Amino acid sequence: MKLATIRNATPDGALHLVSRDLSRMAPAAPIVATLQQAIEQWALVAPRLATLAQQLELGAAPGMMPFEPRLAAAPLPRAWQWLDASAFHAHGDLLETVFGIDPPPEKRTVPLMYQGAGDDLLGPCDDIALPSADDGMDFEGEIAVIVDRVPMGTPADVAHRHIRLLMIANDTSLRVLAGKDLRTGFGFLNSKASTSFGPVAVTPDELGPAWRDGRIHLPLQVHWNGTLFGRPHCGAMGFSFGELIAHAARTRNLAPGTIIGSGTISNDDFRTVGSACIAERRAIELIDEGQPRTAYMAFGDRVRIEMLDEAGASIFGAIDQAYVRAAPPAQPHA
Amino acid sequence: MKLATIRNATPDGALHLVSRDLSRMAPAAPIVATLQQAIEQWALVAPRLATLAQQLELGAAPGMMPFEPRLAAAPLPRAWQWLDASAFHAHGDLLETVFGIDPPPEKRTVPLMYQGAGDDLLGPCDDIALPSADDGMDFEGEIAVIVDRVPMGTPADVAHRHIRLLMIANDTSLRVLAGKDLRTGFGFLNSKASTSFGPVAVTPDELGPAWRDGRIHLPLQVHWNGTLFGRPHCGAMGFSFGELIAHAARTRNLAPGTIIGSGTISNDDFRTVGSACIAERRAIELIDEGQPRTAYMAFGDRVRIEMLDEAGASIFGAIDQAYVRAAPPAQPHA
Repeated sequence: MKLATIRNATPDGALHLVSRDLSRMAPAAPIVATLQQAIEQWALVAPRLATLAQQLELGAAPGMMPFEPRLAAAPLPRAWQWLDASAFHAHGDLLETVFGIDPPPEKRTVPLMYQGAGDDLLGPCDDIALPSADDGMDFEGEIAVIVDRVPMGTPADVAHRHIRLLMIANDTSLRVLAGKDLRTGFGFLNSKASTSFGPVAVTPDELGPAWRDGRIHLPLQVHWNGTLFGRPHCGAMGFSFGELIAHAARTRNLAPGTIIGSGTISNDDFRTVGSACIAERRAIELIDEGQPRTAYMAFGDRVRIEMLDEAGASIFGAIDQAYVRAAPPAQPHA
Repeated sequence: MKLATIRNATPDGALHLVSRDLSRMAPAAPIVATLQQAIEQWALVAPRLATLAQQLELGAAPGMMPFEPRLAAAPLPRAWQWLDASAFHAHGDLLETVFGIDPPPEKRTVPLMYQGAGDDLLGPCDDIALPSADDGMDFEGEIAVIVDRVPMGTPADVAHRHIRLLMIANDTSLRVLAGKDLRTGFGFLNSKASTSFGPVAVTPDELGPAWRDGRIHLPLQVHWNGTLFGRPHCGAMGFSFGELIAHAARTRNLAPGTIIGSGTISNDDFRTVGSACIAERRAIELIDEGQPRTAYMAFGDRVRIEMLDEAGASIFGAIDQAYVRAAPPAQPHA
């Protein structure tokens, strides 16, 4: 089934079922109010949501209406934990080159992962408001999973079974600030703005045989200002999502509703398939031509990220966003 | 006023007012259910909570009962964002020595801060369950603030006005894993277990003149297995909390209920006042004696962290916890 969160007056929005073809939706309210609540009691509510999804496919769900992605928040508008890996080796290798970073010695055996801010996640069509175009604004096309509660110490093969939903994401990065953050060792902070997510989260069965080995075996396509920028294949992930979850849970429990991202999708044949972020193209230019030629984003630029199935249908709907200059902050109450 | 969250059947617990002397409490339920909800509408609920707090001081609050810290969860049992700085320069300098880390070039002008996991915060008397004593288990005595919504780009002097509550914390660290996390550049992940917080969060006015310049001007005392380990002064913080909040909000909004920690309290005269974590003592031993002599914690060890006012009364109540071996993880549902 496919699930979307439609904005309302509450910070967590209203959970809706969405039809497979993304044309219509129906409120999940008779069963559960929010996606966070659904994940917290998944075994109880998932069968009931599946029944409602079947009614929706048949055009007979109560409260049915057209699905409009612009009304959608992120499936989880705020998450108790958002962790993002760098699981595509081609991406890590290229960015180490461009940032002049020493490669971590265990990079092929231990996942690289940072703790992100999950308190302010953006919807698929939200503007991305940022303070300065001088910070090196970049998109990152990614995939991500939502897990239910994962106890500390869960091994990868069991961790895999905690995956409840899959998503696509745009993990906006500020590259001029990234090198500084990396060199502190304390991780990305100023260099990671709010992450955006695709219109719907889907259960793994929606992908059929394309979901196997804890990986999505389909390409993710990224357009920048209407031009195809890259179409790297997600099956090249160097670690499975089960391995990523197990790494995250090595010394801590993961709350239900924790999101774990793949990091930027990237393939070894990047010169053929293109990239899912600008930093990679700049790294390739640096290698091939001696200097980066492609500039980072300007205010007004748009990015579109989407995944199509074998038949060409959109699985998650499209992330389609503009980068805009943030308004100055308002003064607080006394 | 002083606020505690008492465990109930919900993940966010039940907000209670606590008397200044920490002897009794009364439910805040007639006004607001949880601390997260209170922070989200602080201007509305704070005056009403203050009235209830006055009634409690007079012994006339509805539902009044003795305050028992063992029933308390963390004031925010889960937080949408938990950020922790390293704002005491003596701590950073010592740990760079022991871990052989190159100091960040801007360490006196730009705060060091990492994104922590806020989804599973521990109460003041909760056991700290960890997988292995070989990971270098260490406590870290800290102070922290809770802010309401902070818009992106808020400067330090305005950020200061978003501070609603103050807390004490024990930021458990796994030192054997920390060097590896630092060297990836991606920040602390496996090396930071769930953070614990003191029994009550207090409004800044509770500290009187000890709260000034965005700092708490009182010492924090740390006992390890009943022996005083350190009593460093919190006034030595190298950055104010206003500066820490502004740094965190440089490229992102902070959701109401975001927690920002100071990092381990540490003073330049560490040989006199002692330390708030074991890693520092080991660093001092390394400098003075050529090798660290003090071992990290063993299962069964206890830590007690508390802050007393000038008259010797406990402000936040005591963090008093045992470190125990975690049970193996349960299998997930199908």
